[in-house]
Amino acid sequence: MPAPSPAVPERVRIALEERSYDILIGPGLLAHAPSWEGLPTAAAAVIVSNATVAPLYAAKLRSALAGRYRTVHEVVLPDGEDHKDWPTLNRVFDALLAHGCDRKTVLFALGGGVVGDMAGFAAACYMRGVPFVQVPTTLLAQVDSSVGGKTAINHPQGKNMIGAFYQPARVVCDLDTLATLPPRELSAGLAEVIKYGPIYDMAFFAWIEANIDALMRRDTAALAHAVRRSCEIKAEVVGQDEREAGLRAILNFGHTFGHAIEAGLGFGEWLHGEAVGCGMVMALQLSRRLGLVGEDFVRRVTALVQRAGLPTVGPALGADRYLELMRVDKKAEAGEIRFVVIEQPGRAAVRGAPDDVVRQVLADCTR
Amino acid sequence: MPAPSPAVPERVRIALEERSYDILIGPGLLAHAPSWEGLPTAAAAVIVSNATVAPLYAAKLRSALAGRYRTVHEVVLPDGEDHKDWPTLNRVFDALLAHGCDRKTVLFALGGGVVGDMAGFAAACYMRGVPFVQVPTTLLAQVDSSVGGKTAINHPQGKNMIGAFYQPARVVCDLDTLATLPPRELSAGLAEVIKYGPIYDMAFFAWIEANIDALMRRDTAALAHAVRRSCEIKAEVVGQDEREAGLRAILNFGHTFGHAIEAGLGFGEWLHGEAVGCGMVMALQLSRRLGLVGEDFVRRVTALVQRAGLPTVGPALGADRYLELMRVDKKAEAGEIRFVVIEQPGRAAVRGAPDDVVRQVLADCTR
Repeated sequence: MPAPSPAVPERVRIALEERSYDILIGPGLLAHAPSWEGLPTAAAAVIVSNATVAPLYAAKLRSALAGRYRTVHEVVLPDGEDHKDWPTLNRVFDALLAHGCDRKTVLFALGGGVVGDMAGFAAACYMRGVPFVQVPTTLLAQVDSSVGGKTAINHPQGKNMIGAFYQPARVVCDLDTLATLPPRELSAGLAEVIKYGPIYDMAFFAWIEANIDALMRRDTAALAHAVRRSCEIKAEVVGQDEREAGLRAILNFGHTFGHAIEAGLGFGEWLHGEAVGCGMVMALQLSRRLGLVGEDFVRRVTALVQRAGLPTVGPALGADRYLELMRVDKKAEAGEIRFVVIEQPGRAAVRGAPDDVVRQVLADCTR
Repeated sequence: MPAPSPAVPERVRIALEERSYDILIGPGLLAHAPSWEGLPTAAAAVIVSNATVAPLYAAKLRSALAGRYRTVHEVVLPDGEDHKDWPTLNRVFDALLAHGCDRKTVLFALGGGVVGDMAGFAAACYMRGVPFVQVPTTLLAQVDSSVGGKTAINHPQGKNMIGAFYQPARVVCDLDTLATLPPRELSAGLAEVIKYGPIYDMAFFAWIEANIDALMRRDTAALAHAVRRSCEIKAEVVGQDEREAGLRAILNFGHTFGHAIEAGLGFGEWLHGEAVGCGMVMALQLSRRLGLVGEDFVRRVTALVQRAGLPTVGPALGADRYLELMRVDKKAEAGEIRFVVIEQPGRAAVRGAPDDVVRQVLADCTR
């Protein structure tokens, strides 16, 4: 496990031709001048953050950016998934227009996945596209949502239904920001870290099993490795399939069931990562019932999900409601739900499944 | 002047690598089966149109598509620029979700520039992008807005402020639909045809001068040539600069002043093309005052704008208001207004201009 140095952050490259960019990972990066060198120049920068994160880190980011941009504005959104909607997004546009921001203006998304998704989508749409930088302050955003260019807002009838593929100019993961993360959110982030094991890299999965206690107590070196390896895997997958024509869909392991949980309970009730943690257990049970993996493997992953402080049993929404919610998933095709299943430990695929098998899984995994 | 054949439509290619597509131009294309061959396959198609155009052409398009798509839905929006906003756009998303549309669903934009901009932006955002086809039914949309992938909605503080560069899979220009166009809208479309002369092709400009009467009486052969040559020029420009990093901005000739007129009077008061017609005269007067072109040339273009039935004098909003409105134009940079000027007949450039020169132009050209 390499020890991260504050002077030389770890660097993962997302290779997407002219849309390529770096992910910087390390402690102390917010105040570290080289983190911001080489970004697009402009008269103004705009920090988009939320009411929880802005008081903690906006001043630090603002002073780091002051040397590069003549003016640095701030837009502070309400915190939480239930504000990931059009009226809240429009507050970003209102602010950009009120400040006379032109199409060179650089947006900085300072916060978790919701802030990243909204600031990214705002950047994708404002004047048909301005540059933006992801500055994720949650583990979930650092290992998953800030990387790969998926941006979106929710529609009352479905999560992330309105959005764009729009790549950031850079991602800066300051590990120090994880110190202020509530324990539930740390666990939620670990769900997306664990995800990379069954779908892509069982050696990494074994490393997580061996280091889960260090991760839970926020050991910086352990976090640095978890974030770096997660970003590397995501970079490899996204580099091959930027717009989710195929391979990239495996990153949605646990998300089909997970989105149904989030939508069924009302967004914000469970954290996204909590729903994904439980959704992975459900997707594994489905894989087992489809004859793809054995019970031992399901137990092994379930145990790690549990040790990460995540739920492994879903809410009793009723199978009909689960099926209805999953049919509006973006992976669905012509009304058929598409699940990410594990074909063998370390390899995933996307496929349909008979409704009665899905009902058995739901009967097993909800209470 | 080549005579168009209904059996073999004219074809202009927009070359943008994997986003390349054809523009088909000719009479009778809506009901002509080959117009729709080779489009992406899907379970469902959705026709997005407005309350004026849908009663005229939606049934014809629907039956043409019925052979290719199992279900063909229809979303009918209110007509007009003042509905090019988020609540109206959201009606498209509501319908797509209510019909369970997946991310292979193909959208068909049947109507003028507003429908094309909205359906295109809806396609860009729905599930982060579904395919769409432009079926422009106005001259303005056929020669300009349906080609090149600019999509957007308006913000109360600025036109086309929220949008995306998102290319259609095809553009089908059925010249027969121009028969039902109100005279004002025909003139508005001619503004964008005339535009291509001063910025790019003075031989085409001379052809328009010689054929303006035929165009005004909607001669099919004249319209076919005007649409084809306009699309060819737009294809050449967009092919070199898809995202308007440079050259493409010349297509906004007349639009900086024009947008100010539209916004100052309230969107919908003047048609977009009317504002552009008048805006071109203003931009030419500016070019003259900057010493770039002579008075004869300004008079020549102004005469053609007039013969096309377009206004050549702007509303008296006051110079301060014009300047304020132009400062939020998307071409503005760090608060400086950027104008498309004519450097010499057939060649345009983008540059700033001293406020006092702009004020003189406004004094000359408004009443």
